[in-house]
Amino acid sequence: MNVAIIGLGLMGGSLAISLKKLDFINNIVGSDHNKIHQQEAVELGLVDNVIEFSEIKNYDVIFLAIPVDGIISALKNLTEVKESATIIDLGSTKSKIISSVPPKIRKNFVAAHPMTGTESYGPKAAIDNLYKDNVVVLCDIENSGDFQVKIAKKIFKALEMKKYFMSAKEHDRHAAFISHMPHAISYSLANTVMHQENKHNILALAAGGFRSMSRLAKSSPNMWEDIFRQNRANLLEAITLFEDELKLLKGYIENEEWYKVHKNIEAGNRLHDILD
Amino acid sequence: MNVAIIGLGLMGGSLAISLKKLDFINNIVGSDHNKIHQQEAVELGLVDNVIEFSEIKNYDVIFLAIPVDGIISALKNLTEVKESATIIDLGSTKSKIISSVPPKIRKNFVAAHPMTGTESYGPKAAIDNLYKDNVVVLCDIENSGDFQVKIAKKIFKALEMKKYFMSAKEHDRHAAFISHMPHAISYSLANTVMHQENKHNILALAAGGFRSMSRLAKSSPNMWEDIFRQNRANLLEAITLFEDELKLLKGYIENEEWYKVHKNIEAGNRLHDILD
Repeated sequence: MNVAIIGLGLMGGSLAISLKKLDFINNIVGSDHNKIHQQEAVELGLVDNVIEFSEIKNYDVIFLAIPVDGIISALKNLTEVKESATIIDLGSTKSKIISSVPPKIRKNFVAAHPMTGTESYGPKAAIDNLYKDNVVVLCDIENSGDFQVKIAKKIFKALEMKKYFMSAKEHDRHAAFISHMPHAISYSLANTVMHQENKHNILALAAGGFRSMSRLAKSSPNMWEDIFRQNRANLLEAITLFEDELKLLKGYIENEEWYKVHKNIEAGNRLHDILD
Repeated sequence: MNVAIIGLGLMGGSLAISLKKLDFINNIVGSDHNKIHQQEAVELGLVDNVIEFSEIKNYDVIFLAIPVDGIISALKNLTEVKESATIIDLGSTKSKIISSVPPKIRKNFVAAHPMTGTESYGPKAAIDNLYKDNVVVLCDIENSGDFQVKIAKKIFKALEMKKYFMSAKEHDRHAAFISHMPHAISYSLANTVMHQENKHNILALAAGGFRSMSRLAKSSPNMWEDIFRQNRANLLEAITLFEDELKLLKGYIENEEWYKVHKNIEAGNRLHDILD
């Protein structure tokens, strides 16, 4: 099986590192519109070769590991793939991508969202085992070809990922609450603090708590502008519900209703009965 | 030098572990109103003995490692300490604590806030090196006795901490932005997601980003109710400014002003030119 990865950043580069260990994969090539990333990916040994986008269509398995608007554009230029080709995207949104797949290659396409990543980006951010033991959500697979679903499952199984199946619509709503809205909050938190505090004080006073709350604010503008656009309606709903929740807590503090503040904190604590 | 630590949880317990290694400290005793914590602290070997609060007054150095309202109460009961005694609190707020120190022991008192911690609590959460290489903020030291400031500096130096000096007023405003408001956000984020998502989906879909944003929501209700109360005005200001900032970003998304969204994200990214 010959694999081509479009996008050699954190997600694509880390994927290349892991796929390389699998015996059913013959060779892995990559493509990236960023010349520096091309060079770094080769220097780091992430892929065997960097190829032109026009050659991608000849590969058995094609991964799209680029920002979500780029995925939509790339799909429009992949209509000449082999009939047996499997195209898998790794985007953080699913509805807009799926609805824009050219009908000719809809069976070739498998929509996937690996629930993993770091706030770093580019080929140098690629790490081993980024995918291992994490969840991958596969969406609307009833519209993908049986053969392509089989290939995608085989690869994600070999990557030791846990598979979840849901509709793109469900996925996008969940992702808005559990990933996209928290990113928006982190950007706003970082901006609030930078408007109020000078560099010296931030550096001096930022303990682990602030660092973990603002870590996501490091995430790529190119990637996240696209995600916010594609999942706009769900994201706006999630932000509004968060605003309401914060307003509630703020109101308790304003009115010195400390018993309610205590209960609100206790309720928040309960998340970790689920997560820990 | 004989040391007594009031409060044998994360902060007090970790302090005991580190102080034990210092050659100028003879013995370390502890006090905790929670019987289970007393027992755990002894079993874990955090302190040599657990003593009654009434015996605390005989010690050379007394640390207050309890929630900030408890610090105020404890200080009222420490007016009979030795003239040379040094009382150091480790609370996350400073103004209310300092203004409530009985005048008789104001010179004995040194207000400190070590900018370190984890979201865990209780004696079992105590870890080695919690203090090492972190910042400790010392407030209004011109009102503490010269001898007591010397002792406090000696201890924090031995703990390998970086000392910052500022007024309690300044401290409380900075802490609101860099620590207290982010905690409020984390509680509200956890509550929003729990109202919208079931346990199964949270567990399946929560990647590193959500986990780091919601980690602080695990923090103790007893401790944080007190902090929110004591730093109420600054906290409300910080929450309001954060709300304005999030409203701005939400407005750009609502109005599909993607160039502004991109710029807002880029501005958020800049925090990490400071922090990394």
